[in-house]
Amino acid sequence: MIRRYTYGTPLPTDAVVKQLNTEPGAPDCLTVSKSTDGTVLSFPLPEEAMLFGLGEQLHGINKRGHLYRSWNSDDPQHTESKSSLYASHNLLLYAGPERSFGLFVDDPGEVIWDLGYTRMDAAVITVAGGGFDLYVITPEENEDRQLTAMCREFRGLIGRSYVPPRWAMGYLQSRWGYASEEDLVTVARGHRDKHIPLDGICMDIDYMERFKDFTWNREAFPDLPGLCECLKAQHIRVIPIIDAGVKAEEGYDVFDEGEEKGFFCKREDGKDFVTAVWPGESRLPDFFRPEVRAWFGEKYHRLLDAGAEGFWNDMNEPALFYTPEGLRRAYETADALRGALTEYDSSFKLSGAFNALANNPEDYRSFYHTVGDRTVRHDRVHNLYGALMTKAAAEGFAAYRAEKRYLLFSRSSYIGAHRCGGIWMGDNCSWWSHILLHLKMLPSLNMAGFLYCGADLGGFTANTTEDLLERWLQLGVFTPLMRNHSAQHTREQEIYRFSIWEMMRGTLSVRYALIPYLYSELMLSALTDGLYFRPLAFDFPEDRTACHVEDQLMLGTQCMIAPVYEQNAVGRHVYLPCDMLMVRFRTAEDYDMEPMAQGHHWIELKLNEFLLFIKRGCFIPLARPAEYTEAVTTERLRLLGWLNPGEKSTLRFYEDDGVTTQVSLREGVRDIAVDTGGAVQCDGSVCDTAGLVR
Amino acid sequence: MIRRYTYGTPLPTDAVVKQLNTEPGAPDCLTVSKSTDGTVLSFPLPEEAMLFGLGEQLHGINKRGHLYRSWNSDDPQHTESKSSLYASHNLLLYAGPERSFGLFVDDPGEVIWDLGYTRMDAAVITVAGGGFDLYVITPEENEDRQLTAMCREFRGLIGRSYVPPRWAMGYLQSRWGYASEEDLVTVARGHRDKHIPLDGICMDIDYMERFKDFTWNREAFPDLPGLCECLKAQHIRVIPIIDAGVKAEEGYDVFDEGEEKGFFCKREDGKDFVTAVWPGESRLPDFFRPEVRAWFGEKYHRLLDAGAEGFWNDMNEPALFYTPEGLRRAYETADALRGALTEYDSSFKLSGAFNALANNPEDYRSFYHTVGDRTVRHDRVHNLYGALMTKAAAEGFAAYRAEKRYLLFSRSSYIGAHRCGGIWMGDNCSWWSHILLHLKMLPSLNMAGFLYCGADLGGFTANTTEDLLERWLQLGVFTPLMRNHSAQHTREQEIYRFSIWEMMRGTLSVRYALIPYLYSELMLSALTDGLYFRPLAFDFPEDRTACHVEDQLMLGTQCMIAPVYEQNAVGRHVYLPCDMLMVRFRTAEDYDMEPMAQGHHWIELKLNEFLLFIKRGCFIPLARPAEYTEAVTTERLRLLGWLNPGEKSTLRFYEDDGVTTQVSLREGVRDIAVDTGGAVQCDGSVCDTAGLVR
Repeated sequence: MIRRYTYGTPLPTDAVVKQLNTEPGAPDCLTVSKSTDGTVLSFPLPEEAMLFGLGEQLHGINKRGHLYRSWNSDDPQHTESKSSLYASHNLLLYAGPERSFGLFVDDPGEVIWDLGYTRMDAAVITVAGGGFDLYVITPEENEDRQLTAMCREFRGLIGRSYVPPRWAMGYLQSRWGYASEEDLVTVARGHRDKHIPLDGICMDIDYMERFKDFTWNREAFPDLPGLCECLKAQHIRVIPIIDAGVKAEEGYDVFDEGEEKGFFCKREDGKDFVTAVWPGESRLPDFFRPEVRAWFGEKYHRLLDAGAEGFWNDMNEPALFYTPEGLRRAYETADALRGALTEYDSSFKLSGAFNALANNPEDYRSFYHTVGDRTVRHDRVHNLYGALMTKAAAEGFAAYRAEKRYLLFSRSSYIGAHRCGGIWMGDNCSWWSHILLHLKMLPSLNMAGFLYCGADLGGFTANTTEDLLERWLQLGVFTPLMRNHSAQHTREQEIYRFSIWEMMRGTLSVRYALIPYLYSELMLSALTDGLYFRPLAFDFPEDRTACHVEDQLMLGTQCMIAPVYEQNAVGRHVYLPCDMLMVRFRTAEDYDMEPMAQGHHWIELKLNEFLLFIKRGCFIPLARPAEYTEAVTTERLRLLGWLNPGEKSTLRFYEDDGVTTQVSLREGVRDIAVDTGGAVQCDGSVCDTAGLVR
Repeated sequence: MIRRYTYGTPLPTDAVVKQLNTEPGAPDCLTVSKSTDGTVLSFPLPEEAMLFGLGEQLHGINKRGHLYRSWNSDDPQHTESKSSLYASHNLLLYAGPERSFGLFVDDPGEVIWDLGYTRMDAAVITVAGGGFDLYVITPEENEDRQLTAMCREFRGLIGRSYVPPRWAMGYLQSRWGYASEEDLVTVARGHRDKHIPLDGICMDIDYMERFKDFTWNREAFPDLPGLCECLKAQHIRVIPIIDAGVKAEEGYDVFDEGEEKGFFCKREDGKDFVTAVWPGESRLPDFFRPEVRAWFGEKYHRLLDAGAEGFWNDMNEPALFYTPEGLRRAYETADALRGALTEYDSSFKLSGAFNALANNPEDYRSFYHTVGDRTVRHDRVHNLYGALMTKAAAEGFAAYRAEKRYLLFSRSSYIGAHRCGGIWMGDNCSWWSHILLHLKMLPSLNMAGFLYCGADLGGFTANTTEDLLERWLQLGVFTPLMRNHSAQHTREQEIYRFSIWEMMRGTLSVRYALIPYLYSELMLSALTDGLYFRPLAFDFPEDRTACHVEDQLMLGTQCMIAPVYEQNAVGRHVYLPCDMLMVRFRTAEDYDMEPMAQGHHWIELKLNEFLLFIKRGCFIPLARPAEYTEAVTTERLRLLGWLNPGEKSTLRFYEDDGVTTQVSLREGVRDIAVDTGGAVQCDGSVCDTAGLVR
């Protein structure tokens, strides 16, 4: 059951697809009050209570114990000090000893979530804006998986998740630094020569002509359509980046048109809001206006025409490097302090003045959007900007070829954008702790509707190491978006550059062998409002140990993952919430299996080994691996599972052409049944059977 | 066996106390070559090889897999990207499948340690300077604990570790922000009123008169001697901070004298090197000169006269906020970019120019020291500066009262300073990951001779949470330096401010009950060149699982610790390398015990519970807790242990007056023997016996 409560006059956010009537009165699970900071929602946190959700955020799967801020931010240092990342997903689930409920705070401005931070026993949520909808989700009393059920109901409210093309389940290689046709050809050859799987190459800002959206450097890419075709012939797609900011340069048609049509964000005085990002001085399209989205979305056609089949939208928090006003403020500080650094902290004031240039709160308060017939200051709707850019792109694709799926993933997002594209987790670091942070965000993103997602494998900033990349790939094997991405000036991290590339190739072979299964689970999650990744707490709510596991995830209906995320580890502790078959993978062809009883286990793992657990009584299909997704078929699947003697086991399996936007659960799904008494070889404990006839 | 090899002409570092002859030829465990970056020491890393050491550094107990830099740095963001902290401890131990050896690179300049970072299978150490001593340690072949034995031999080379007064084992409270007599009285009262143990209060820079060393603000502290006396009567010591930089202010006698005597570091042109730290424009004493150390060390007497009994030396990397030359460079960049931010990254150049003000490499190359009869550019001996400041203080104390121990701990250090004082681990953050980082550094610091050490409990920068502080205190219970410290503008983190202060007090009660044991183990480690904390690999080299444990430590001869370092955890996995008695503490009076077999265990732990393991056949004493160390006696010790029936168990126990510098192993040590067939009650499995007669 979802009830809607309205406070003040909410702005439209496009987050929900079902219009619920506003309830009279107040929800019974929390207290609503007013403070000088905004509307305050609070409720007690008994000792046993857990909190889940918040989508792309830091800290644990259980969000209890920290302070979070919904405020989309471009900040490439994801340390434990931070309270925001690039997205705001205002869904919070409370699982208490006596009851459970969910909250969706549908407000695109700042929201502060003090979740047992100031006081361990209280949650205090402060919504800064003047009006918002609060959706309160309560589960059926007789439901035994209340958290999952609440998510399903919430997902029904917010609409079906984005469905990527099947090839987007392939391995993607990216780097800030691929600046020419030759760079892309080198990457393609690097993979194909060594038979390392690859389905796509992401082009970062370097491909553009001086960072101008929808252009490419004609010297470095003399024939982009030819290049795309050539790579496509090798089953490698090209995936360009598009930034939110439009370079201010006369003669650049996107700028000229936007200026002429008045499509850019305005200051209070009606003039264009001037900022700077990668291209230098830039303008921000006012994506809140449908006509601006249509105009911007149509520009993607240029690169679609050139052969691109996917895009990533970046810098759409929106990131601001500086504004003229901010620069003036910084220089004023510098001029005032020139020759006058007397106080003990004056040099920090000086550096602080320039460090405050980027993403300055004052700048976010100095421009406006047209939202319906209202003019709204940016900070009031800040967290929606990236979502609406994503919507512009999705609408552009639909206008181009409505029947074809395109890959799209964005850095910034808000709930609602999950219907238009996936996301990546932004500019992480080559830190071991970020493998675990990556894992922890996955189920939270699924709850918020974002199924196609993943983090930069190997880490974006800082220098990776061989073992870090290998361990991260071992998690990436299971994430729908599986992309290796790294920043300029960091160590190059394409697999083929490393001494252990054969090990990494073996890891990728498991991904490709799992694609039929993973794609099926992804599609089933999308089409049934399910969760591809879940905390163990969702499936085993009565198991207190399982509820607090923070480094394992349930995957699909059948599986659990438990990656290694510590350097030099020779194994790891795993908690099995039920009997499971352990599969210790080295490659798709080389693995061992062991039935394991519910409980705690220490499992030895070499660097090239990683784990997949399959619940007892279940099985999953394994295809023959390949170097690109199109070569992965469901022709002859091998089944892995631990089946109970005499019991029939069934896998709900989804398959489609992976291309058309018209998807149908009814048409795509079928049951694969294994009867341990039947023709399929099974010894009653471990089933590893080739030759299942479809 | 330790052999010394000399390359070029080393500078004196004061690190070793035994003068070994230089060996002819080259060591057989590594290859020495020259590169443009300096002298290169390299050796292969077989798959099974582990590396230990490097003292205060980031990453694992096993140092393999990262790049480290010996370059003392004041950087308060200890992320995984960093390669240096505040100290350089150039001891590295190699534990390979076929042999083990140790290296001590005695060079006070930059050393780069590429330990399986660029290539997983190679260690490459680059010593930038023009000459250094390399000490190669090899164990006896028949030694079964080769790593421990090599450390013992190395410690013999570098001399006996600093011995703190016994009261320094008490709980210390600190904060950047205690600015007046009232602040200190409030802290003392906050603890005493609630009966929370406390032995000392650290005063950060706020107590000084405008950050001038050896002064105090006479308005805020009208009677510092009276305050010290009053607090001392409550068994609370006052521990002021001293910074390396001396404020440049005419009329300030320390500055005037230093100027007059020419005691400050000079530029190439012979003029004083001008920099700025907390007091604004400052000078750096040239601690390389004995007469400067004597002069500076004597200044501590002012605060000793006022009643201080301990000090912490800070900012002695040395930290530089800026120099006039650096400011000029930054302003030049800013002026050149004024109104001319055209390139995509020009705003980053602008902020970068000011961010480069602090600790700028160019500044470190622009001043000189007098080392013996040579003039040496600072960067050549950079890593020694803090160690020599510590030496100055220690020499000052000896001159004041040679027979009395004073507490001293420093931020920056180099091997050799371990004879003069302890260290804290610098400006950490209120991050859960920093509990584990704290744990990992402890044994490495012990190897390098630093026994009295610890990190800021609760975290220095960023805001703590109640549970973070509680969990961190649970580790701090076992660290010789047990200090709660936090930064200006962060959440106040004195125990008495939190809702769970009683829980925290209970945790502290365990510390105080353990003081006789912990002090004994600390002193035995100091007097026998032993390791108070050890990686499990040191005690169980044949146990591959034990060798790779990164979140547990052996403590003393009898114990192992395994703290919780994850938020919301309801337990943890522990590996027992041998049979052990688990003690699950809540308070010193409230704990439960369980004998546990060698192997893997999952142990449930509430927030107020933490673990100490005692090896089977051993026991430890527990005293009655108190509110300050002097009230903790060894009069009636309770013994905890799991004794084998019919076997006699002996504890080597050290005790002294905790005050005098003349310490003697022979006089202080005695055996406490428990005969399970004797008068002491023991049920043959768990021994928890009150009333042992001394």
